[in-house]
This record gives sequence, structure tokens and C-alpha cells, in this order.
Amino acid sequence: MTAAIEPHPALAPLLAFIGTWEGEGEGEYPTIAPFRYRERLSFEQVGKPFLTYEQRTWSVTNGAPMHRECGYLRIIPDTSPPVVEFIIAQPTGIAEVAEGTLADGVVDVSTTTTGCTATAVPVSGVRRRLWLEDAALHYELSMATPGTIDARHLAARLDRIDRP
Amino acid sequence: MTAAIEPHPALAPLLAFIGTWEGEGEGEYPTIAPFRYRERLSFEQVGKPFLTYEQRTWSVTNGAPMHRECGYLRIIPDTSPPVVEFIIAQPTGIAEVAEGTLADGVVDVSTTTTGCTATAVPVSGVRRRLWLEDAALHYELSMATPGTIDARHLAARLDRIDRP
Repeated sequence: MTAAIEPHPALAPLLAFIGTWEGEGEGEYPTIAPFRYRERLSFEQVGKPFLTYEQRTWSVTNGAPMHRECGYLRIIPDTSPPVVEFIIAQPTGIAEVAEGTLADGVVDVSTTTTGCTATAVPVSGVRRRLWLEDAALHYELSMATPGTIDARHLAARLDRIDRP
Repeated sequence: MTAAIEPHPALAPLLAFIGTWEGEGEGEYPTIAPFRYRERLSFEQVGKPFLTYEQRTWSVTNGAPMHRECGYLRIIPDTSPPVVEFIIAQPTGIAEVAEGTLADGVVDVSTTTTGCTATAVPVSGVRRRLWLEDAALHYELSMATPGTIDARHLAARLDRIDRP
């Protein structure tokens, strides 16, 4: 339904992120054993000054589904460097609001509000960085938990799968 | 990819909500003129104790896209009445965590955390109720804003469109 819609002009700095990407990532944290995962991620435009965002990961060993999340990456028109806002829902019971900028090609946002349900394992201080390099989408995610500050948790490199 | 996955046993009280629904709704608020909208909404299961949630609305007069949101409806196993948690991301810059129960067939949740980006129009006190009646999915949403407490904002009746 969105194929014929022109991108909103404010999206210009984010156009190269639009698409469906797939690849592998590495998870680590001071409190857990390192692991690898497979991931598919998509950013789509719908004619407004945001991208829709959806991703899911699964085990590289047995294909079992792991994490998934969805949300929106907003860009605020007429800001320099562009202000970006990432709103993310997670089925682990967490709703993130992360804010930052798109500077030197890097979407760099940190959580300003993290909502957790009563049954969620709380996290905080999540920082997400996304950039394009060698025609691939890269991201890194670091976070804080009780007793650990700003440790890298996830890093992935995803190749575009929706265009030849 | 999810067609062959059995629903998680905890989803039993929510199974009837699974599907894609479409219909019309009415918007109102003390501060705005009433309006009607068309909506498509889907709940899907992926083998875990939550449903994925996605919806969008558009104008009944010119088809222009209006709102959209996405997230997850969790159900907590072995609670009675079942505890449910709704995690929702909105491209308006809002991330909602809403918690409540599924009692007498009604998913009744109220926001416990509402994250807003710096550029969002803040809302609070959102209560969402969803139920099935006459083979249709109904919902009502009320909310508070500065100066207005617990006023009804949205009500819709959606018919199933994914099964004969």
C-alpha cells in the first residue's frame, strides 16, 4: 500500500537506511556467555517524517526465535545535525524512548525514558548506534544494568536483502 | 514464517483476538471536533506468551493516513484473572506501557509509564479496553491531557477480514 508514496523531504539523511537487512550479530555482557544470532531488520517509509522499524533475531544453531522489537525512527525537520528519536516496543515488557542525533552518518541515540512492566527485567541507559559501511547496516547497542555501566551488549552487520 | 507455530498455552484466553480486523471508529475529545476514521488492526501469535500488535487508521473522507502504532500484548501465565501488559510504540514520539487484566472477556489496561520524546505532544492516563462482541473486535480509549481527566477519545468496531 505504500509503494507509490514519496518519502517525506525530512527523511533525506535517512533514505539509505530504508530497506530490509539480514545478517549476523554478536551478543555479550559481563554477566552472560557470548552468543551469536541471526537477524532480519527493516526500515520502511510511509510518506511521513519517520521510518517504521521492525526486527527479529533467531538462534544461529537451531533457528529458535530469540528477540524481536518494533517501533519508529523519527527525524525532526530543520534541525542540524538532524535530531532523531527512536520509539521502540519490546515483547519483554519494555518500551524505550531514545533520543539523539544523526551526525557523520551515525544514528546515535540514548534512552531518555525506559518504561518497564511489573514483570519485565528492567534495563536502563541503552545507547544505540546505527550506521552504513561497506554497503551494510551496522549497529551497536550498549546498556546499563544494576552493577554494570555502559557495557556493549550487541553488535551486528546486516546486508541488504531487498534489492539486487 | 509463523503459520506452523502452535500458540503458547498461556494465550488461551486471548486466542479469539488473533486475526486481522477492519472497520470504523469515532474520535472525540473535549478540545477537538468529533471525527470518524477507518482502521485496520492485527493481533498475531508467534509461539510465545504475547501477541504482536499493529494498527493503522486513515481518513474516511480522503483516505489520507492518520495514526499508526505497533507493539505487543503480553499475558502473564498462571495469573487469575489473567494479568495483561500492553507495550506500544507510536510514531508521534510516545512509548506506552499499559498494565491491567483480562476479566470477563475485556482486556482492560491503563498506562503505568508513558515515555514522550522532547518533541511529542504529551498524553497521560491512557486507558484501553478491548473486547469481542457480535463477532467484532471493539475497543475504547480514554485519556487525560492537561485540563481534562479521563475523557473518551476513541471507540471503534472492527470486523474480522482474515477468515471467511
